[in-house]
Amino acid sequence: MSLVVVGSLAYDAVETPHGKVERMLGGACTYIALSASYFAPVSIVGVVGEDFADEDVALLGSRGIDLEGMERAPGKTFFWSGVYSDDMNDRTTRHTDLNVFVDFDPKLPASYRTKPYLFLGNIQPGLQKNVRGQMNGVCVTGGDTMNLWINEFRGQLLETIREWDFLLVNDSEARLLSGQSNLKQAAAAIMAMGPKTVIIKRGEYGALLFFKDRNGKTRWFTAPGYLLDQVFDPTGAGDCFAGGFMGYLTSRNVDLADPAADHRELHRAVIYGSVMGSFCCEKFGVERFRTLTRAEIDTRFQEFQDATEF
Amino acid sequence: MSLVVVGSLAYDAVETPHGKVERMLGGACTYIALSASYFAPVSIVGVVGEDFADEDVALLGSRGIDLEGMERAPGKTFFWSGVYSDDMNDRTTRHTDLNVFVDFDPKLPASYRTKPYLFLGNIQPGLQKNVRGQMNGVCVTGGDTMNLWINEFRGQLLETIREWDFLLVNDSEARLLSGQSNLKQAAAAIMAMGPKTVIIKRGEYGALLFFKDRNGKTRWFTAPGYLLDQVFDPTGAGDCFAGGFMGYLTSRNVDLADPAADHRELHRAVIYGSVMGSFCCEKFGVERFRTLTRAEIDTRFQEFQDATEF
Repeated sequence: MSLVVVGSLAYDAVETPHGKVERMLGGACTYIALSASYFAPVSIVGVVGEDFADEDVALLGSRGIDLEGMERAPGKTFFWSGVYSDDMNDRTTRHTDLNVFVDFDPKLPASYRTKPYLFLGNIQPGLQKNVRGQMNGVCVTGGDTMNLWINEFRGQLLETIREWDFLLVNDSEARLLSGQSNLKQAAAAIMAMGPKTVIIKRGEYGALLFFKDRNGKTRWFTAPGYLLDQVFDPTGAGDCFAGGFMGYLTSRNVDLADPAADHRELHRAVIYGSVMGSFCCEKFGVERFRTLTRAEIDTRFQEFQDATEF
Repeated sequence: MSLVVVGSLAYDAVETPHGKVERMLGGACTYIALSASYFAPVSIVGVVGEDFADEDVALLGSRGIDLEGMERAPGKTFFWSGVYSDDMNDRTTRHTDLNVFVDFDPKLPASYRTKPYLFLGNIQPGLQKNVRGQMNGVCVTGGDTMNLWINEFRGQLLETIREWDFLLVNDSEARLLSGQSNLKQAAAAIMAMGPKTVIIKRGEYGALLFFKDRNGKTRWFTAPGYLLDQVFDPTGAGDCFAGGFMGYLTSRNVDLADPAADHRELHRAVIYGSVMGSFCCEKFGVERFRTLTRAEIDTRFQEFQDATEF
């Protein structure tokens, strides 16, 4: 099975307590695709400017990522710059230059339209809905969103996620979208909006999964965050979580719309999400993905087993 | 096997977003003992004033708790009053009246001195050391502490915990004691101070366990916090965690000083800690323990299994 990922391709400038990088490859689509590529074939849709470097194209290509849907537009690539707090739990944006991303209107190449899995990264919800509409057949669909769309495009967002099989957001987004501070109640409220499965990322604390079992009962699962000796740079960790989650589901052909699906597969997908998020934090930006192997991923998956089994 | 618990017996006034109670039974020793009593015989050491109510004595007695070491002194019982923030992750102390607790100098009845497990609740570290010295034989010993003792009595605290098999603290205490912000590094620093096992409570996010396996390698385990529909009052949840953890170890006769001990038993002890902490939050103060049954505890333990297995 294979997966289509839609989202931003960017350059980032990042400062953490461990150092500073003036310009590095970034963007949600980049992280999701790199992470998912360890599990399943990935095709991306995104836009870059004339400054997008050959070596960055080469990195994506080296992971076997299908770049047919990567559009190159006149102008510069989306640029984001930010600085992290001392404990790296907060970050402040210094600059956002949308550049070519302003006019991003994702179009799926014909070869993408029959693919069975679609992950819609955090872009304007109307665009997300439009992409979903371009798929020919039934595809397992889910994605991410952010506070801007929840606050300013709420109606459009609700119309969009109504069609989704899952929503993957962080805890503050889940609270904002649902109006509930309790995460169990927040998940229930979001499930009533359409998505049958809700994944709530909690940063260093891991993630929560909510889904309905074959008896229609809502169940929850929790994956811890991996305990790193040092968090170098958390940029992209949430997107790498998404990539690991979605990549594993794609590789196992799990149908989130089927209540009889083996929920252990969903659990494992969340653990792989946590595994991939943890690797991402070990180096600046996408650096870790230059050397990461599937064997390292499986070793860490086993560490999660040892750290949670009782 | 049976367990000795030393610590405060108190009355609390508590305000949470869900309500307000002017006076209710509290104190670390109370919560630890009630929680542990579901697993093993418990004997307590503490001091109360003339105002300590018969019905509160009766509640402890109804759980089979041995009260021989509960001293009654002239004056009033320790009184604490506090208010929780809207999300209940922070609390502010309004009043602390130490009352009879000022002169608390714990003395173990002869019948306690041969017991094999000792939990030293959060009291002045010199007193904790003194209690440990009153035990006749080898006993599995651990306990809690707080920022006041870490900051103002550091030397005495280090001398005290050097003899302990485990230390059980929350994340901010672990960081303060170790000087490390990363919890894995904090645990390693604390293990170098003496305790072979370190448990770090993380409030709603559950707890982390660090221990050395038979090869001398440090390993970690994580228990999630239980997802409650509503947290009514978190007062005592950390102490109930301690009671569940220690009570289970006592019931299974786990020797924390033995590197060949089955580490799955340690894992289960942490899960029982999390289970007991979750029940505590369901009602004000100790109310939940008036009706809680062992069957409910085991059902929730199974829920933790379902929520973490993959």
